[in-house]
Amino acid sequence: MSGLFITFEGAEGAGKTTILNYVYEQLKSRGYDVIKTREPGGIDISEKIREVILNKNHTAMDGRTEALLYAAARRQHLVERVIPALNEEKIVLCDRFIDSSLAYQGYARGLGMDEVYAINEFAIENCMPNLTVLFELDPEIGLQRIADNKGREQNRLDLEKVSFHEKVAEAYQILVERFPKRIKAINANQTQEEVQSECLGLINSYLSK
Amino acid sequence: MSGLFITFEGAEGAGKTTILNYVYEQLKSRGYDVIKTREPGGIDISEKIREVILNKNHTAMDGRTEALLYAAARRQHLVERVIPALNEEKIVLCDRFIDSSLAYQGYARGLGMDEVYAINEFAIENCMPNLTVLFELDPEIGLQRIADNKGREQNRLDLEKVSFHEKVAEAYQILVERFPKRIKAINANQTQEEVQSECLGLINSYLSK
Repeated sequence: MSGLFITFEGAEGAGKTTILNYVYEQLKSRGYDVIKTREPGGIDISEKIREVILNKNHTAMDGRTEALLYAAARRQHLVERVIPALNEEKIVLCDRFIDSSLAYQGYARGLGMDEVYAINEFAIENCMPNLTVLFELDPEIGLQRIADNKGREQNRLDLEKVSFHEKVAEAYQILVERFPKRIKAINANQTQEEVQSECLGLINSYLSK
Repeated sequence: MSGLFITFEGAEGAGKTTILNYVYEQLKSRGYDVIKTREPGGIDISEKIREVILNKNHTAMDGRTEALLYAAARRQHLVERVIPALNEEKIVLCDRFIDSSLAYQGYARGLGMDEVYAINEFAIENCMPNLTVLFELDPEIGLQRIADNKGREQNRLDLEKVSFHEKVAEAYQILVERFPKRIKAINANQTQEEVQSECLGLINSYLSK
């Protein structure tokens, strides 16, 4: 594989999706062969797995069952969408990937980061991102931004307590320390323009290597 | 947990399901509180996962996706059916469990036994079987028995080449050597009566411990 695999991570409200779209347009306009995606990404098998996860009747679903299902959906999306694009030397921008599972399920939900890493390692094999941009945001600011955004439909995670969001932030901190070469953090408490500019600068410096 | 968790393993055609039923009736008639089960065992979430695995449109399914889905279905069946029964001090007889994944997907399909063990360890946590009865059969005899049994609908695995079934037998050999305390092998080339009697003897000696 000779493409470039870049993932975007961070708590809800950090603006990562908006910035991913911005980076995508910027790179495209500069002639790069780039795609943007997120799991399950329209991959039929991954969508079907997601339906099992989100089915409202499945109130008995165990946390580990859920983590295995997410890893399965991730595997299939990786094999069907990400790896073929990387083989065609494309830049792949992916909204959330393994670190989200480590932060949310491994740490905040308490399944254990190493345990969740083990099943994701099986799912990903050696296809770890080349670069992960982490948008770091104070949990209170993230929650406020979500509350202020009336157009945004609140999801289950938005309604969690502040303490849960603090745990997610803590988890990402641990991940930055564990993978300092791969994960680069950006202060997302800044204005969107500042964050966009810093993110693009980070990716530019990576591209010029 | 203070029940007893016994799993039955072996290649197709080894007669393990028939013998499991026999052991179940024997133990029940002697007053033991015993249940018999097999994955997905009617557990709604596990059945839904199985539908994703078996869906004929999912020809693009990757081997690792499939292994993760099996582990997810296993987890949910364990949590909803096996563990509650063990907590009620029941004897649980389960037709196939982790060793089938290690033998079929890990070894015969080539995903790697250690890798498949890792995701199953996540699924099972510490709930390994107390005893696993392995029915060892020469692959040629197993295939012949399947072919002779006209009432039995052949499945995808039955139609694999002899070499695949030989690999499965090899895998179970490796597992017996790796887990000599847990896995006890019975020569299933004998008559059904002999195998039944040996299996019941094995379980009796375990119960009298």
